[in-house]
Amino acid sequence: MEKVLNPDKSTWETLLKRPTQTVADIEKIVNEIFSEVKTKGDSAVLKYTQLFDGITPDTILVSGEEINQAVKSVSSELKEAIDLAKANITTFHAAQKTEQVSVETTNGVTCWQEKRPIQKVGLYIPGGSAPLFSTILMLAVPATIAGCKEIMLCTPPDKNGEINPAILYTAKLCGIAKIYKIGGIQAIAAMTFGTETVPSVYKIFGPGNQYVTVAKQLATKYNVAIDMPAGPSELLVYADDTANPAFVASDLLSQAEHGPDSQVILVSTSEKMIAETEKEVVKQLEQLPRKEIATQAIENSKLILINSEKEALEMINEYAPEHFIVISENEDYFVTNIQNAGSVFIGNYTPESAGDYASGTNHTLPTNGYAKQYSGVNLDSFLRSMTFQKITETGIKNIGSAIEIMAEAEGLQAHKNAVSLRLKSLK
Amino acid sequence: MEKVLNPDKSTWETLLKRPTQTVADIEKIVNEIFSEVKTKGDSAVLKYTQLFDGITPDTILVSGEEINQAVKSVSSELKEAIDLAKANITTFHAAQKTEQVSVETTNGVTCWQEKRPIQKVGLYIPGGSAPLFSTILMLAVPATIAGCKEIMLCTPPDKNGEINPAILYTAKLCGIAKIYKIGGIQAIAAMTFGTETVPSVYKIFGPGNQYVTVAKQLATKYNVAIDMPAGPSELLVYADDTANPAFVASDLLSQAEHGPDSQVILVSTSEKMIAETEKEVVKQLEQLPRKEIATQAIENSKLILINSEKEALEMINEYAPEHFIVISENEDYFVTNIQNAGSVFIGNYTPESAGDYASGTNHTLPTNGYAKQYSGVNLDSFLRSMTFQKITETGIKNIGSAIEIMAEAEGLQAHKNAVSLRLKSLK
Repeated sequence: MEKVLNPDKSTWETLLKRPTQTVADIEKIVNEIFSEVKTKGDSAVLKYTQLFDGITPDTILVSGEEINQAVKSVSSELKEAIDLAKANITTFHAAQKTEQVSVETTNGVTCWQEKRPIQKVGLYIPGGSAPLFSTILMLAVPATIAGCKEIMLCTPPDKNGEINPAILYTAKLCGIAKIYKIGGIQAIAAMTFGTETVPSVYKIFGPGNQYVTVAKQLATKYNVAIDMPAGPSELLVYADDTANPAFVASDLLSQAEHGPDSQVILVSTSEKMIAETEKEVVKQLEQLPRKEIATQAIENSKLILINSEKEALEMINEYAPEHFIVISENEDYFVTNIQNAGSVFIGNYTPESAGDYASGTNHTLPTNGYAKQYSGVNLDSFLRSMTFQKITETGIKNIGSAIEIMAEAEGLQAHKNAVSLRLKSLK
Repeated sequence: MEKVLNPDKSTWETLLKRPTQTVADIEKIVNEIFSEVKTKGDSAVLKYTQLFDGITPDTILVSGEEINQAVKSVSSELKEAIDLAKANITTFHAAQKTEQVSVETTNGVTCWQEKRPIQKVGLYIPGGSAPLFSTILMLAVPATIAGCKEIMLCTPPDKNGEINPAILYTAKLCGIAKIYKIGGIQAIAAMTFGTETVPSVYKIFGPGNQYVTVAKQLATKYNVAIDMPAGPSELLVYADDTANPAFVASDLLSQAEHGPDSQVILVSTSEKMIAETEKEVVKQLEQLPRKEIATQAIENSKLILINSEKEALEMINEYAPEHFIVISENEDYFVTNIQNAGSVFIGNYTPESAGDYASGTNHTLPTNGYAKQYSGVNLDSFLRSMTFQKITETGIKNIGSAIEIMAEAEGLQAHKNAVSLRLKSLK
């Protein structure tokens, strides 16, 4: 890890730069696959499944039989763990429900705001080395609480045409009726346009590699919304001498193992903490099965000694980390004043992996500095705010003249006329 | 207007198609201007202001003197109208504030969700034929209630290098300190990258022509968020025989005057209502100053006779109008069951223009079918939900084992390790 001591503010921008990605050459292939899936439907989906996943599954839709088999093969220990996580995630997301907001803004003018569920949502769960069944909980639980009518899931088949049993078990547990064996760009394209088998959706959620990320961006050009733009995972820890360096090192490594492009940063006012954490990182890294990946990520990562808590806070807000752990005597200062972070973890016994799995918060969070303008996935991600208004005869008399004057001043005579006609009828 | 009688469901998709736009050739010029503003800053902004607006203003930043002059020149009648509108918009958006959501999901595991303002926002207000000062209210009022720290505004200068006084008055009234004389693509680029004069922002709001729309889309590639993808304005009215056909016609025309690509639709189960509304449209159209624009929009528009209220509702949900007016004996049926609409206007005395100006609801709404997945602008558009968690020693003992089992099953050993170390320390 690169060690940086009391960096001057003028160097922060360069210092806090994320490892860059280039997407230009990916865009071409994504465009090609989109246009083929749009015109050829299932047959294009099957073609690219064969090409990228090396298999042509018998059916795209996972059968009830496959799901039942999977349910049997998951250990009861894992089932119990998933159940506990699901209960906590349900509790936290159900608490996010809001009531109708209704106001009579002027006598006779009643306005209200109500949230209604997005009718059709698609969840994408990557395959590959880590079967992310936990992400199904993070997406399907709030979608269900929100009341989304159609919830479907795409995930790539393995070389044998199968889906990891833990994924099928969790999907069934969450009540997802339709699971499709499709991965990557072709999955995003199928959910965007629909095919003979796969229905199109209004919003697509879920993580993925850079192909999936670019595909989701492209989907937004075709009247589909996405949860958020995604990038590699990242963690920033602020730790003073009250922190346990072994714990801090374990947290840094837990993000570093995600991928070689993950980034972890330790910011501290304590030289001692930095030195001890660095020692612990080296020690713990040796024992990790994903050591190779984590080592590459650690090379991108930084230990930053900083002059004051105030300056630390400023730097953290500038970086806008996806995950922010604060272990400090003055944790309240950071909790109160942090403006830009996806999710905040407080104290020695709050590892980031708690939020990844089982505490109840959502783990789908803004990366790449997007915490400055995006929320992580939450109940509202599956709802839309709609407004309603009802104006009585008295109401239009009260605000009609203001509308006429403003419409006239904007040069919109027909807007004025809609009010004038009504006012005239009441004379 | 095209009249369509009891259309078969198989024809709906074609029937409800919006007038298409092609953006491919716009993208090239937008890309060029973005890369020039990014590298050359103010000088590129000035170059394109000269090119598109035909003027090189003395300063990009509007001076206090200009604002004071404008304040003097706006009539007190218009000032009072704007004040009334601002009061109602403030009341409705302030009511949308939410409290912190805090839950102890498991003994010792406390999770909470809090909303914090987006620190830097940019508002874009188009120039051209209609000076949309009302849109400033719709954006600056909720931004201020949310607590956004920096709120700036870009709007194009006229041929004399000036800004419409009503725009300057409203911006000052809303407390916007920085107003820049920049329009179009170069304004969006300046807010995206920042220049010597113009600061960059985290999120851009506001309407615009198709150049601005494409520029906003491009901005999202550079870590900037936007309010929503925009398209031409649209209105769908459902009216039964309890509606006043003159009112309905005036509402249809108020949207039609926005632009030749606007779309208005009347759906009704009553042949009589359709016939009478059509007559009124022809009659009222004659008297409009923007008759030429409205006539073109009316040509895109449809009068649809439908068999039943149930089928009407289904069609409306499929179309997902930006504005939905319902005037019906059974208004409750529609209000309860409408799923996809930006904003809903109920009854004979609730013209759409009330929501455009003064009732209190926001007029920045999803067009082009995006009401299926996007909310209109509301208080939350200027906030982000952040989550926090604090776990005690008891808490990690309660959920630690579930995290270990799930992390192991996902093949993420370092995630497990972060918990195991902590559990071990507590033995």
